[in-house]
Amino acid sequence: MNELKTLRVGILGFGTVGQGTWKHLSENESAWERILGIRLVPTRASVRSLNKERTVSVASNVLTVDSRSIVDDPDIDIICELIGGVEEARELTLRSFEQGKPVITANKALICEHGDELFKAAEKAGVRYAFEASVAGGIPIIKVLRESLVANEFPLIYGIMNGTSNYILTRMENEGASFDEVLGDARELGYVESDESLDLDGVDAAHKAVILGYLAHGMWINLKDATVEGIRRISNEDLSAARELDCKIKLIGVIRRSFDKNFVSIGVYPALVPMNETIAQTDGVFNGISLTGTVVGTVVLTGRGAGQDPTAGSVISDIVDVVKGMQGQASPPKLLHVTPDECEPAPLREISGSFYLRLSVDDRPGQLAKVAECLADHDVSLATVSQTPNDEKQSASIILTTHQTNEHSIGLAINSLEKLDGVKEKPVLFRMFDPNGFIEK
Amino acid sequence: MNELKTLRVGILGFGTVGQGTWKHLSENESAWERILGIRLVPTRASVRSLNKERTVSVASNVLTVDSRSIVDDPDIDIICELIGGVEEARELTLRSFEQGKPVITANKALICEHGDELFKAAEKAGVRYAFEASVAGGIPIIKVLRESLVANEFPLIYGIMNGTSNYILTRMENEGASFDEVLGDARELGYVESDESLDLDGVDAAHKAVILGYLAHGMWINLKDATVEGIRRISNEDLSAARELDCKIKLIGVIRRSFDKNFVSIGVYPALVPMNETIAQTDGVFNGISLTGTVVGTVVLTGRGAGQDPTAGSVISDIVDVVKGMQGQASPPKLLHVTPDECEPAPLREISGSFYLRLSVDDRPGQLAKVAECLADHDVSLATVSQTPNDEKQSASIILTTHQTNEHSIGLAINSLEKLDGVKEKPVLFRMFDPNGFIEK
Repeated sequence: MNELKTLRVGILGFGTVGQGTWKHLSENESAWERILGIRLVPTRASVRSLNKERTVSVASNVLTVDSRSIVDDPDIDIICELIGGVEEARELTLRSFEQGKPVITANKALICEHGDELFKAAEKAGVRYAFEASVAGGIPIIKVLRESLVANEFPLIYGIMNGTSNYILTRMENEGASFDEVLGDARELGYVESDESLDLDGVDAAHKAVILGYLAHGMWINLKDATVEGIRRISNEDLSAARELDCKIKLIGVIRRSFDKNFVSIGVYPALVPMNETIAQTDGVFNGISLTGTVVGTVVLTGRGAGQDPTAGSVISDIVDVVKGMQGQASPPKLLHVTPDECEPAPLREISGSFYLRLSVDDRPGQLAKVAECLADHDVSLATVSQTPNDEKQSASIILTTHQTNEHSIGLAINSLEKLDGVKEKPVLFRMFDPNGFIEK
Repeated sequence: MNELKTLRVGILGFGTVGQGTWKHLSENESAWERILGIRLVPTRASVRSLNKERTVSVASNVLTVDSRSIVDDPDIDIICELIGGVEEARELTLRSFEQGKPVITANKALICEHGDELFKAAEKAGVRYAFEASVAGGIPIIKVLRESLVANEFPLIYGIMNGTSNYILTRMENEGASFDEVLGDARELGYVESDESLDLDGVDAAHKAVILGYLAHGMWINLKDATVEGIRRISNEDLSAARELDCKIKLIGVIRRSFDKNFVSIGVYPALVPMNETIAQTDGVFNGISLTGTVVGTVVLTGRGAGQDPTAGSVISDIVDVVKGMQGQASPPKLLHVTPDECEPAPLREISGSFYLRLSVDDRPGQLAKVAECLADHDVSLATVSQTPNDEKQSASIILTTHQTNEHSIGLAINSLEKLDGVKEKPVLFRMFDPNGFIEK
């Protein structure tokens, strides 16, 4: 290490995070020399259009529309895949591994869908695949989970994993503004992904939950085995009903493990989180993740879950780790207790919890009794009930919370309720956050 | 790495954390083989008395009263220094380095006093000195600061770094119990160090703040250059006055950096923290640390700051890192922006902030005016004032908050107030937490 080696970084995708990474890499070249003993130089970047104006300006000869030429360039040592999307990114990542080049990524969709293949390919090629930036932007959740909490098993990991939906809920909560109104503002601010379903239907958070589930339990849960619901049905009426129950409604990702039965369950859904949980107090574009480990107890991390600088900061900490790895020992430690293939997705019947329900019903005598009876038929018992008439529509809102039941029973109950005479639309169902979400018999 | 190597761990000091480390190490021997490719075996431990009963039982031949014999034992590869105290621990640590053995420690007092010497000795010997467990127990603050947030500079790091004092304040706050009453309970629960000053006078938190200051700014601040105050003067009257101001009083460690002037200031003191800060909501024995980085923004970590399992968990994550290091590349990355010796301790005049003052005064006309005049003489201007008579003592309580001033002026003002006619005892002074604690002119 006496003569100063140069490592060159190629950036695939020169959007917000790509430009941020370039900026911080090039602004700190002397610092890299000091702390890594090498020259670390951002060298080339790929773009969709050469003519677009960008906030980070680079010499014209470093940009190309051909990502593959960067991967294949023998002068490029490290690849940052910040291109987004799945198929092209997958191909470029595998190609990089074949060339013996480590890859740093922020691409949660890719890892969620092809993680198993990609991690195996990286291992086979003997290079690192680093992805701190893929979950919760600037919050160092991957490193904390894998390295700091290596001695733990994790009965529960949960939190706010999507900043855009949290921004919308926070403004609805604080200002009483409607979903549509705040969504309009969020679009204008550029907070909403071009595929809006990623933010509004819980899909982005689900990608992250799947990655955390893999890290904690060594198992890739298929999205179709996960409950994934978004924020579109949350009304201001729900937010104030939750407040009455001393809760806030948050879109949370929940990864639960039953050690008794070796089940893992992953869900993303709106839930009533008790006000005294740090996660309930995590507002605006912030993310927060609560890890409960068998040794450490509960550790909570909060911070910015997205944005140019926080996410680029995570990319850069990965680059530093990767360079350290190239200088010696490579992979970070696996979790102590993870033995892949020993657990399986939990059947709905095994996932217990209590629920919040809002129904719009005809305002006539006996309607509430019918609803209660229908729930009882499915062994769902009521904890609290309130009914408010809505004179304009000659209808009433019934808001219920249930005692402990399970996902299977509540699913059947909802199906029956929807068909019940006098119920006007599909009932709104939210979960009550419950740290003890499996019944360990 | 094909034939299974054995690494043997020697534990100096077999108290709570030492026994926890032994327990988790030995319970998971098969996991070490799987994740590290080696056998990792706790082999010997040193104690003060061989006959004491312990919760973790070990074969009698593994215990010794001679710590040095463990350090010198050629069969021992890794040393965990969990002995506490300074002089003996320092000597044993240096001796371990001389033997080429890495050391894992939870000893904040030792690092605070001799960190510079010890880190240099470890570097010279080419071995790791790992200390995650020394700050905030199970919260992985060292790794996050050094590795995850490598690309940042840190204008502000602050938080609750001592669980015992936070436990006492939380119970006073929640139950209206007196300091002495809760202290008695805390003693019975074994929460208070045998040297009570460590917990009650802010010294333990100051050790941790000095370590964080070193990691963030590359500079060892001497405790005599830090403001270190404890919780003994906090009354229930102060706690409710703080509540009126929508704050909670917390004992916080604060590490501030001015980039303009390259000043670093470290302080530990009771402060009024706005209720919406996660740190204000961090109650009981929990610790919480808020890091504000130039790239990541603000990241907050909360969790258990002490206790057998969380602290042993941190020791174990350090052991895993150290073993990974022994298998290849050693030291974790330095922070990107840290260039030692470029900054210096901030003079008091440069540390700005606003303050909370409680005075016990003679209840007579004109007293408040005298107090206000005395403050104005030192350029301290008032933000809020309230006076409550205390009929029994023919005295009154005056509670004041100030506008922005600096530590130098408020110090002079307090000295004058104490001598002011009609002021009955040394005024109680707490800081108002202020994220912008330097005036950058």
